[in-house]
Amino acid sequence: MTGASSRLPAAARAIVDGDRRVLARTITQVENGDPAADRVVRSLYGRSGRAPVVGLTGPLGVGKSSLVNALVGRLRSLGQTVGVIGVDPSSPFTGGSVLGDRIRLERRADDNGVFFRSMASRGAAGGVAATTREVSRLLDAAGFDVILVETVGSGQVDVAIRDIASTSIVVVVPHLGDEVQTLKAGLFEIADIFCVNKVDLPGAELAKRDLAELVTLGGRASAWAPPIVGTSTVEPTGIDELWNDVMAHEKFLDSSGERLRGERQRLSSEIVGLARDHIGRELTLRLERDPSLRHLLDEVVARRIDPRTAADRLVTGGRRAR
Amino acid sequence: MTGASSRLPAAARAIVDGDRRVLARTITQVENGDPAADRVVRSLYGRSGRAPVVGLTGPLGVGKSSLVNALVGRLRSLGQTVGVIGVDPSSPFTGGSVLGDRIRLERRADDNGVFFRSMASRGAAGGVAATTREVSRLLDAAGFDVILVETVGSGQVDVAIRDIASTSIVVVVPHLGDEVQTLKAGLFEIADIFCVNKVDLPGAELAKRDLAELVTLGGRASAWAPPIVGTSTVEPTGIDELWNDVMAHEKFLDSSGERLRGERQRLSSEIVGLARDHIGRELTLRLERDPSLRHLLDEVVARRIDPRTAADRLVTGGRRAR
Repeated sequence: MTGASSRLPAAARAIVDGDRRVLARTITQVENGDPAADRVVRSLYGRSGRAPVVGLTGPLGVGKSSLVNALVGRLRSLGQTVGVIGVDPSSPFTGGSVLGDRIRLERRADDNGVFFRSMASRGAAGGVAATTREVSRLLDAAGFDVILVETVGSGQVDVAIRDIASTSIVVVVPHLGDEVQTLKAGLFEIADIFCVNKVDLPGAELAKRDLAELVTLGGRASAWAPPIVGTSTVEPTGIDELWNDVMAHEKFLDSSGERLRGERQRLSSEIVGLARDHIGRELTLRLERDPSLRHLLDEVVARRIDPRTAADRLVTGGRRAR
Repeated sequence: MTGASSRLPAAARAIVDGDRRVLARTITQVENGDPAADRVVRSLYGRSGRAPVVGLTGPLGVGKSSLVNALVGRLRSLGQTVGVIGVDPSSPFTGGSVLGDRIRLERRADDNGVFFRSMASRGAAGGVAATTREVSRLLDAAGFDVILVETVGSGQVDVAIRDIASTSIVVVVPHLGDEVQTLKAGLFEIADIFCVNKVDLPGAELAKRDLAELVTLGGRASAWAPPIVGTSTVEPTGIDELWNDVMAHEKFLDSSGERLRGERQRLSSEIVGLARDHIGRELTLRLERDPSLRHLLDEVVARRIDPRTAADRLVTGGRRAR
């Protein structure tokens, strides 16, 4: 798919040529599952896979957004362009992060080398991961040198960052308190880098030592030992070090063969996920429209057939109907 | 499926007869997706659908567990038996809530009328909801009068409580701060009852007024206006009122026809989810084992075919292979 750009659909062509409005519109279409984006997404896949995708995740209030801004500043000073995706565990009607984006956009309104976009994490966690991956590929194809993905909250979306990012930064603050449990509960496993933000607060050294101990005890499958970086965005500290660690991890991915291994695994589950969703949509329609399957649902509601048996029949019926 | 118990598999028979060890073992099997539980789950479905399933959700630290304990105490004093499921957004190796369960179990070790069980929320949000529904049905079939489902965290699992519970209680505390955003971002929509816990803290009246305003402005689809209850577990306050509101909502579900409508919708998505997962597992195996599909994955890794096109071929290939 290294074919000539002339074969690209017009919107894809515009995205590659740097048209930010078409990029924004296409992202909205992807987010809404709009089929209008389908050809664009498909045609641009071959132009993605170049930019590192760096995920930042961690509990609410640790200063992820400020850290992203600091990283953007650092990358811009290095002459690199940056696409930022904020993934928000919210329903469509929340306005919070959109407002945040506006503020950030205004601040960098004159800079075409940065693109901020927040996305509501609708539907299942798999769905968010799949959508975010597609959007990060669009940014990649649009030519941004680095993609930053920031998640909000501490749920399944955070863990799904693993399926999106090539390097995952888990951000915490000194005095973790209850959040240590959150860390143990999933985030710890996904960290390629630990970032102790607000390192100017008391307790930072202790937090770093605690994390170092967790890393030592962790029994990680990978040969990569996650470094622990202290950062602050008040009196900018550690931002260069954080970025250097990201680059070191990206190099490790290449030299160890883990990039290819991970990418293969992620793509496999993405493809199966897409196929499964496709089939799920077909089955939902069939369950609503096909009289015999509507009867099946009636029987489950009446508790004469159990859901597992009904699902079996739906799978079998689906096969037969094909 | 009101058939004689004699037709039940032995484990199902034991569960119905009150054997808590078999119940606990079966729940573990369901949680692990162990096929050993399959016949038991299927055979007991017809005996479920009787007990109200009451979900408690809300941000970390609002005192959900204490509230659950207070409700259990209240229900026991009313002579009712209670099954409690704690859904934990955690990976298998977290020990936090298991410890919590132990403490609670010890306190009520002599009481066969209460059963506590925590579950790690593995995999996708749909998966947790499906598993928790099956476990709540097992508790229902085991004869518990009321099922309480408590979630931890503020991610997708909390919103999934809608797919599990007949009545959802959203628990908050005075001075919500950042959490107001979390509420707006999904939890607000799922509340059948708002509970302002720690109502002895300053700001409780303001929090109740704020919630009342949200409810008024909400533009909810249902005819049910969520009541707002102040509770405390320190100096027990409002627990009776909370339970009365739960009962009022359960009555509303029956009188309005919403129970049947909701149950039909939930079962439909559960059946489709089960069918989709079944097909997804088949497809994953096929993608790993079938040489032509392995080649398809190779092409995606090499970026010569995009994931959507690969998924289309997987769906089509799956159909042909059948």
